[in-house]
Amino acid sequence: MKENIIENEMIKRIAGKFPRAPYQTNKMFESDAELIYTGGNRNNYLAITMDTLCEEIASGLYDDPYLMGWLLVMANFSDIAAVGADPLGLLVSVNYTGSEEIGFINKISSGISDACSALGTFVLGGDTNQGRDLFLSGCALGQVPKKSTITRIGAAPGDKIFLSGPAGLGNIYAFLKLQKRGMELPADFYRPKARIKEGKIIRQYGSCCMDTSDGVIISLDTLMRLNRCQFILYNQWRKILHGMVLKVCHTHNVPSWLTLAGIHGEFELCFTLRPENEKMFLQEAAAIGWKPIPAGEVCEGYGVSIKMDKESIPIDTATIRNLSHEAGSDPGRYIQQLLQMAKEIRI
Amino acid sequence: MKENIIENEMIKRIAGKFPRAPYQTNKMFESDAELIYTGGNRNNYLAITMDTLCEEIASGLYDDPYLMGWLLVMANFSDIAAVGADPLGLLVSVNYTGSEEIGFINKISSGISDACSALGTFVLGGDTNQGRDLFLSGCALGQVPKKSTITRIGAAPGDKIFLSGPAGLGNIYAFLKLQKRGMELPADFYRPKARIKEGKIIRQYGSCCMDTSDGVIISLDTLMRLNRCQFILYNQWRKILHGMVLKVCHTHNVPSWLTLAGIHGEFELCFTLRPENEKMFLQEAAAIGWKPIPAGEVCEGYGVSIKMDKESIPIDTATIRNLSHEAGSDPGRYIQQLLQMAKEIRI
Repeated sequence: MKENIIENEMIKRIAGKFPRAPYQTNKMFESDAELIYTGGNRNNYLAITMDTLCEEIASGLYDDPYLMGWLLVMANFSDIAAVGADPLGLLVSVNYTGSEEIGFINKISSGISDACSALGTFVLGGDTNQGRDLFLSGCALGQVPKKSTITRIGAAPGDKIFLSGPAGLGNIYAFLKLQKRGMELPADFYRPKARIKEGKIIRQYGSCCMDTSDGVIISLDTLMRLNRCQFILYNQWRKILHGMVLKVCHTHNVPSWLTLAGIHGEFELCFTLRPENEKMFLQEAAAIGWKPIPAGEVCEGYGVSIKMDKESIPIDTATIRNLSHEAGSDPGRYIQQLLQMAKEIRI
Repeated sequence: MKENIIENEMIKRIAGKFPRAPYQTNKMFESDAELIYTGGNRNNYLAITMDTLCEEIASGLYDDPYLMGWLLVMANFSDIAAVGADPLGLLVSVNYTGSEEIGFINKISSGISDACSALGTFVLGGDTNQGRDLFLSGCALGQVPKKSTITRIGAAPGDKIFLSGPAGLGNIYAFLKLQKRGMELPADFYRPKARIKEGKIIRQYGSCCMDTSDGVIISLDTLMRLNRCQFILYNQWRKILHGMVLKVCHTHNVPSWLTLAGIHGEFELCFTLRPENEKMFLQEAAAIGWKPIPAGEVCEGYGVSIKMDKESIPIDTATIRNLSHEAGSDPGRYIQQLLQMAKEIRI
């Protein structure tokens, strides 16, 4: 595991010199949302995160204004879910060009509003700017009890890996949208929901947690590096992948595991659990009608592997992660490179 | 005062349908930062705001990376200052193109870091994205005692209007940068600092407060509409305007009051005060070495006027505010229209 992650190098370049606030409990990279102690006699941490939709709009990946609004909310609250926090609200910055029609702006607004309602939360404020490109920024706030937080740190050999739900649909959406242009997708084909209530159970029983917004493989790579263990993913694609993923991959002859490797993930949570906590955890999950998916195990060692029938195949996750940076802002080139790379791996 | 403000119409279009959080204390437009009660036995409100630098970078108005970082921080914390809050920290989203040199990114980072240090606060987190254009988004947090908040609401006839410091330098910077391209400005020509400690005094004695980030005239127009009073500005330009503003306006034959009308303001606070609070307020201000500038008075009526020697001249602030939207993302055209408009006003 020699290669550095270009994105992390960039973040270190920008933020490496910044002194940390003494009242911030997490270190850089170590949780999906920042955890802040706001002083006094408080039992909660403030959880806060920021997420921008820009290239996704510029590239045509998101062209439905309702979906733009919906995903802005979910992308932000998925990070809030991954630290087990309760949503407090969202700030929204809408940067419009001035040439959008009224109906288009109204649909962005409806997507934001419906997504907040679906999570039981509110838009608190924001700003608008006019400029050359349309883009949306969000900043989500939440609260989490100090006694019951979860971050990306805490996995240990022997832990089991779970997913909050079937994965791969984000990448299949991107594949169909960018590689099969002209194909009509149903309006609700990709309408993910941040896993807020699931996160509140995970924070009690889990050892570490991260959302899959950049894809499952990138989450596993991140957790592996931070916890210095080996993360082994089972090749049980029928359980791990969304039904639609299996269908589309079959039709278009795409290796289905690749929908875990692409950078356009979904908003599931990828988390680990000590075996002794599994029973209680699954009971609480069942009580809210949720079926977490066993997806792998944590072992001694380092790296991410996929467990096949007879052997485990190591995955060069650094190369996978850096592909998207090397392709710059050309998602078509990125997808081609990913498909090319998959040909060289026997999964 | 017939004309609507285009920007506000846009905000209402986007946000008008959003239900408000029951624990949010301010209404839309009524304060520079959102004020949130986070539950339990708390004596503070959380203050939160978001601000994006995009067009300022695209247009070449900000071309010094250190200044970009500095102004991102100050723009966000100026809103925190205007509600009288203490800074808690900042989230930063850096959207880079990938073609920036390392030194350039380092300078953005230094500008952010130095500005946070200057305000005694911290970067808490953020994200990075790669795309077609460079832009920076920020989200600032603060805390303010529940017993001592200030918003844009509360001015009454008889109040005095103050500025926290001399104004106009933001617009002079924009004028020189965009209209007199090639002119070399000293690196520290425009390096404003958010008025955090001043805001904490204003919150105790003031009746309403707003920052001048969109220019003094726009602040007065906003406060006038919200409080339904007449806001009269004194024509004492030697006191109200920055020394450099008077000098540059003289050299370039620009009406100096126009540096209050342009949309590229600075980060002073514009606030009102009941006459009976003035003495105590000025004592506390003097104790921290601060000299607030008397700038006008609030009267019965409606509208913004400038008090000349013999008469008060009403200013069509709605037209001034809407100019920037009509000019779209062409700041050169905007400045020309502003200069043209000024010819028709006898100030």
